[in-house]
Amino acid sequence: MNAVPNPLLAEAAELSESVTRPIPGSRKIHVEGSRADIRVPMREIVLEDTPSTFGVEKNAPFAVYDTSGPYTDPDYRVDLAAGLPALRAAWIEARGDSEALAEFSSPFTRRHAGAHQLDHVRFPNVPKPRRAKAGRNITQMHYAKQGIITPEMEYIAIRENQNLDRIREQHLLQQHPGESFGASLPKLITPEFVRDEVARGRAIIPNNINHPESEPMIIGRNFLVKINANIGNSALSSSIAEEVEKMVWSIRWGGDTVMDLSTGKHIHETREWIIRNSPVPIGTVPIYQALEKVGGVAEDLTWELYRDTLIEQAEQGVDYFTIHAGVRLPFIHLTAKRVTGIVSRGGSIMAKWCLSHHKESFLYERFEEICEIMKAYDVSFSLGDGLRPGSIADANDAAQFAELDTLGELTRIAWKHDVQTMIEGPGHVPMHLIKENMERQLEKCGEAPFYTLGPLTTDIAPGYDHITSAIGAAMIGWYGTAMLCYVTPKEHLGLPNKQDVRDGIVTYKIAAHAADLAKGHPAAQARDNALSKARFEFRWADQFNLGLDPEKAKEFHDETLPKEAHKTAHFCSMCGPKFCSMKITQDVRDYAKEHGLEADAALDEGMAEKAAEFRKSGADVYRPA
Amino acid sequence: MNAVPNPLLAEAAELSESVTRPIPGSRKIHVEGSRADIRVPMREIVLEDTPSTFGVEKNAPFAVYDTSGPYTDPDYRVDLAAGLPALRAAWIEARGDSEALAEFSSPFTRRHAGAHQLDHVRFPNVPKPRRAKAGRNITQMHYAKQGIITPEMEYIAIRENQNLDRIREQHLLQQHPGESFGASLPKLITPEFVRDEVARGRAIIPNNINHPESEPMIIGRNFLVKINANIGNSALSSSIAEEVEKMVWSIRWGGDTVMDLSTGKHIHETREWIIRNSPVPIGTVPIYQALEKVGGVAEDLTWELYRDTLIEQAEQGVDYFTIHAGVRLPFIHLTAKRVTGIVSRGGSIMAKWCLSHHKESFLYERFEEICEIMKAYDVSFSLGDGLRPGSIADANDAAQFAELDTLGELTRIAWKHDVQTMIEGPGHVPMHLIKENMERQLEKCGEAPFYTLGPLTTDIAPGYDHITSAIGAAMIGWYGTAMLCYVTPKEHLGLPNKQDVRDGIVTYKIAAHAADLAKGHPAAQARDNALSKARFEFRWADQFNLGLDPEKAKEFHDETLPKEAHKTAHFCSMCGPKFCSMKITQDVRDYAKEHGLEADAALDEGMAEKAAEFRKSGADVYRPA
Repeated sequence: MNAVPNPLLAEAAELSESVTRPIPGSRKIHVEGSRADIRVPMREIVLEDTPSTFGVEKNAPFAVYDTSGPYTDPDYRVDLAAGLPALRAAWIEARGDSEALAEFSSPFTRRHAGAHQLDHVRFPNVPKPRRAKAGRNITQMHYAKQGIITPEMEYIAIRENQNLDRIREQHLLQQHPGESFGASLPKLITPEFVRDEVARGRAIIPNNINHPESEPMIIGRNFLVKINANIGNSALSSSIAEEVEKMVWSIRWGGDTVMDLSTGKHIHETREWIIRNSPVPIGTVPIYQALEKVGGVAEDLTWELYRDTLIEQAEQGVDYFTIHAGVRLPFIHLTAKRVTGIVSRGGSIMAKWCLSHHKESFLYERFEEICEIMKAYDVSFSLGDGLRPGSIADANDAAQFAELDTLGELTRIAWKHDVQTMIEGPGHVPMHLIKENMERQLEKCGEAPFYTLGPLTTDIAPGYDHITSAIGAAMIGWYGTAMLCYVTPKEHLGLPNKQDVRDGIVTYKIAAHAADLAKGHPAAQARDNALSKARFEFRWADQFNLGLDPEKAKEFHDETLPKEAHKTAHFCSMCGPKFCSMKITQDVRDYAKEHGLEADAALDEGMAEKAAEFRKSGADVYRPA
Repeated sequence: MNAVPNPLLAEAAELSESVTRPIPGSRKIHVEGSRADIRVPMREIVLEDTPSTFGVEKNAPFAVYDTSGPYTDPDYRVDLAAGLPALRAAWIEARGDSEALAEFSSPFTRRHAGAHQLDHVRFPNVPKPRRAKAGRNITQMHYAKQGIITPEMEYIAIRENQNLDRIREQHLLQQHPGESFGASLPKLITPEFVRDEVARGRAIIPNNINHPESEPMIIGRNFLVKINANIGNSALSSSIAEEVEKMVWSIRWGGDTVMDLSTGKHIHETREWIIRNSPVPIGTVPIYQALEKVGGVAEDLTWELYRDTLIEQAEQGVDYFTIHAGVRLPFIHLTAKRVTGIVSRGGSIMAKWCLSHHKESFLYERFEEICEIMKAYDVSFSLGDGLRPGSIADANDAAQFAELDTLGELTRIAWKHDVQTMIEGPGHVPMHLIKENMERQLEKCGEAPFYTLGPLTTDIAPGYDHITSAIGAAMIGWYGTAMLCYVTPKEHLGLPNKQDVRDGIVTYKIAAHAADLAKGHPAAQARDNALSKARFEFRWADQFNLGLDPEKAKEFHDETLPKEAHKTAHFCSMCGPKFCSMKITQDVRDYAKEHGLEADAALDEGMAEKAAEFRKSGADVYRPA
C-alpha cells in the first residue's frame, strides 16, 4: 500500500527470539471440531515416564489452554507486515449479514490513510472494513438469542474443555467439589451451553468482524477465569514495534485479551499493527484517543468527535470498548471527600467534561446511539468503572456504587440491542469488602460478566502491587468475576518493561487458576494433580513444564543444582538427600509394595515382624540418585 | 573463650552494607513505658509537607512496627562476636525464679564446647545458661495466669499500638469496620489485655530466658498478624556468616520471628551465632539436629538423644520448638493414597521411625516430659503439622485432620503445664477449603494461635510460590491465623538467596497487613491512608517511604523518570501530564476551593455560570510541575 522506505517494517519484521521460542517441553496441537475449519489450538506438554522398581508407568501428554497464537508454533513463519491469517473471515462472510465497505467510514481514518508523513509508521496492507448490512444485527448475542450456534461458539466449547475427555481417561480426576456461589459450571462445555450463556448475557465473545484474525474466546462466570494484559505507549515512551512485541510477549505468558491503552504518538497506526497481528481480542478506551484529538483539553471533547473515534476503532477491529458511561454529573460530588478522588483516567476526563460544561455526560445521554455503532461491528461493551476506588479508604463508597447501579441500567439497554456487555470493577478494596462488590454486580447487572482490576487489598506496597492485587483478584474470581485485569509490579510507579509484564501475567494466571479451583471448574485440578505427581516422583523437567513459567522454574532450580544429572535426582537442594520427605514417603510406599502390601494393610499385619523387615530393607533405603 | 585464629570472626565482624544501611526517610525512635528500661523501638517515617495554593499542610511523622533491631540504628555499632545487648536480662533475674547454671546440662553441648576442632566456627563468648529453679514455673503463661503483668507484656502492648495515640491525633482515622470472625480486637492494646490473652492461651510470647537479647513480641489472633522467615544451611550449601547475615536481612524487611532450619554442618555453632545476634525470637525443629546426630538414619533416633537435643537447644536460647508430636502411628496409613504423601521433613522422619519400629511416636508418648523441659526455660511449642497436605489434591484429608485433632489434645496437656503453645497449619489448600482449616483449628485447639505455611492455593506455579501462597496466607490471616510462615519464590526448587528472602518477606508482610485490614485491626488502615494521601498529593518520596520496600519503589520509579525533579512532578510516567486522573481530580478540587465552594456545593449553584467560570480558569489548569 505504500512504496516509501519504512524503517518500522525492518524493525517489525522480526520479533525477538525471547517472545517466539517454543515453550519448553511442549508442542502445538489442534483439536478439530465438527468441520475441518474449526481447529482449536492447544499446547500439549509431553511428560516423562514414571520410573519404578516395578516397571514403567506412562504419563500421557497434558493439554493446556493456549493463548499464544501461531507465534509459538515452530512451523509458522512470522511476518508482522502481513499480519496473521484471517481464520474467521470465511465464517463471517458465510453469514451474509455484513458487507465490505468501499472505504472507511471515519473521516479521521481517511485523513490518516492519505497522510504521507505517516507512511513510515503505517501497517502496509490495511484490509477493507466490514459492517453489518442495513437493518441486520451481527452480534454473537443476537445469533445466540436466535438459537444459532456459530462456529465461534463451537470453537470456544472445544477450547474451554482443554481436552478434558483425554484428561478424564489419562489423569487422576481427583478433584475437590468447589464452592461456586451460585455459578452453573457444567461437567463438559457444549456449543449449546456456550450459546445459551451468550444469549442470556452471562458471557461474551469479544470478536469484532473486523478482527477475523482472532481465535474465539469467551468471558463469563461459568467458564475459565480469563486475564487481560495492558500494553500501550504513553506521551513519554515506547515505540510501535515495542508495542507489537509486548502484545506477543503478553499472550505467550497467557494473556487472554490485550488492552491497547496508548496515549502517545501514532495511536491509530500502532493499533493497526497490533490488531492485525493479534490472535486475542483487543480492547481500547476510545476516550483516550478522542482526548488526543482535542489536544488534551477535556472540555473540548464533543459527541461528534467521540462518535467518529468509535467508528474509526470499530472499523480497525477493536473487540471491546471501555466506555465510562456511568460517570454521571450527579455522582461527581460524591468523590469530593475521597482520599484519592477519581483515579480512572477515563473517569476523570469525563468528570472534568461534565463539570466544565455542567452538563450530563454525553456517553450516558447518547448510550443508545453508541449501541447502534457497536452492534454494526459486534464490538462488546466493557462498561468502565470511572469512579472506582483508588485507595482502601475509598472502597465501596457511594460514588462507586452509584456508578455500578448505573452500569446495570446501561446493561439492560445494551442487551435490548443485543450488544454484548461486560462490567468493569475495582480497584482498591480490603478483603472483607470484596464480596459485596461481586454480589452487587451480579444483582444490579443481571450476571453480565464482571471484569475487575485486582482489586488491590492494601495500598502499602508500591513495587509489589501485582501481589497486593493478586490476592483480591483470586478472591473475586472465585466469587464470580469472569476476567481479571492484570497489575504489574510497576503499578503506581512507572511503565512496565518486559519482565514486569511477565510477572504481572503469570501472577494473574495464578489468581485465575486459584479461582477456577475454588469454583470447582471441572478442568482445573487436573493440572495441579499432574504437576504434584511429577513433583512427588522427582520428574523435575515435568514439574517445570507443567508450571505456568517453565523457564523460570528451571532457572531457579539450576541456581543451586545446575547439573543435568540433578534433573533426575531423588532429592533437591532445599533438604538434601537425607531430609527429603518425598523420598522417605516413597521409600515407605516402595517397601509396602515390595512386600505385596498396601501401606495401610501393612499396619494390620504383625507389627514386630514388619518392623524387623522394614529395618532390614531400610539399610539401603537411600539409594544413590 | 578461645584464642585460636578464627577466620569466621573476621568474616562475621562485618555485615554487608545492604543489610544495615538506614531505611530511607525514616529514623529509629523509642517509646518509653512505665519505667526507663522499657524502651520500645519503632521506625518513624518523616513526611513532607503538603504543598497547596492555600498554604502548607504539615504531615506528622508516621511510626511503624520495627522488627529490625539495633541494626538499622545508625548510632549502634554492630559487633557480631559480642552479640546484642541482653535487654531482658535484668527482668529475668529480678523475678528470682531462675538461676544461672555452672555448666550446660546437655552432654552434647559440653562435648562441643571442649572440641578444639570447632574453635574456628565457635561464637567467642557463649553465655552461661539459665534454668528455672526447682519447682518453679517461669513461663509467661504461668505469670499471666497468676495475674502478673511482666515487663515483656507491657513492652508488647506499647509495640502493638504502633504509637496509635499519635496516629489518632495526626492522621485521618478513616477506617472500615472489619470482619473479624469472632476475634476480639480492642481499640487500644493494654498490658492487661496482653496478660489476659496469654493466660487463656490465645496468644504466646516466645522468649526463652536464655535469649535475653530478644525484643518481646506476641503471636495471637487479637494482635497484628506476624510473619516468620526461614533460614538455614543444608547439606549442600551456605556458611555460618551467611546465615547470620540472612537473619539480619530477614528482620530488616519485617520478619517477626526467624526459624533456623539448618541441617548441614555445624548446626549447633551456627545457631549460637544466630541467637546471640537476633532481636527476634528464634524457632527450630529439633528433630533435624537429632537426625544429624544419628547420621541421618531415622530408625536410630531415640528419646534420650532427642531429649538431650531439646535441652541443648533450650539452653542456647531457642524460643520455640516445632515438634511433630501429632504424627501418630495409626495416622500414617491415612497418607497412603495421597498424591504427595508426607511432605513435612519432620513428619516424614517420625513416620519412618514409627513404621520401622511399629511403635507409637516417642514425641507423643513422652509429651508430658517434653512439657517439663519446655517450661524450665520458657520455650514455646509450635506443634508441627507433619501430615500437612503437599498438594491441592491432599488438602483437608483424613490424615491432616486426624493430626490436627491430636494437636488439640496435646495443647490441653501443654496448657496444664502452662507451656505456651501455637499450632502449625498447612500447606497446599484451594481457597474454598481454607476456612475449614481455621474453624477446625479454633475449635479443636481452643484458640491457641495458628501458624500456617501459606497455604498455597494452587500447585501449578513453581517459581512463584510466594504468590500462590500469599493468596492463601492473606485469607487465613483474615480468618484468624496469628502468624504466617513465609514462602519464597524458590519453594520446591532450591535454596533462597537474598533477593528471594526479601521477596518472600515483603510478600508476606502484604498478606499479613491485608489480613489486619480485613480483620479491622485498629492500627492497620492508618498506613494505607497515609500512603494514599501521599500518592494523591504527588509526594513521591513519602509514597515510597511509607511502603513496605522504599528502595524498590524508588528504583522502579527511577527506571522511567530518573530525574530528581520528577519526585515532585504532578504526574507520572504511566499516563503523562495530560492524562493524570489524580491531577485532574486535584484541579477540580482546587477550582472549588478557589471559589470558596466545596466540590459538592458547587454542583448546586447555577450550573451555566459555574461552567463558564471553570472553563475560564481551566485554561491554565495544567500548570507545569
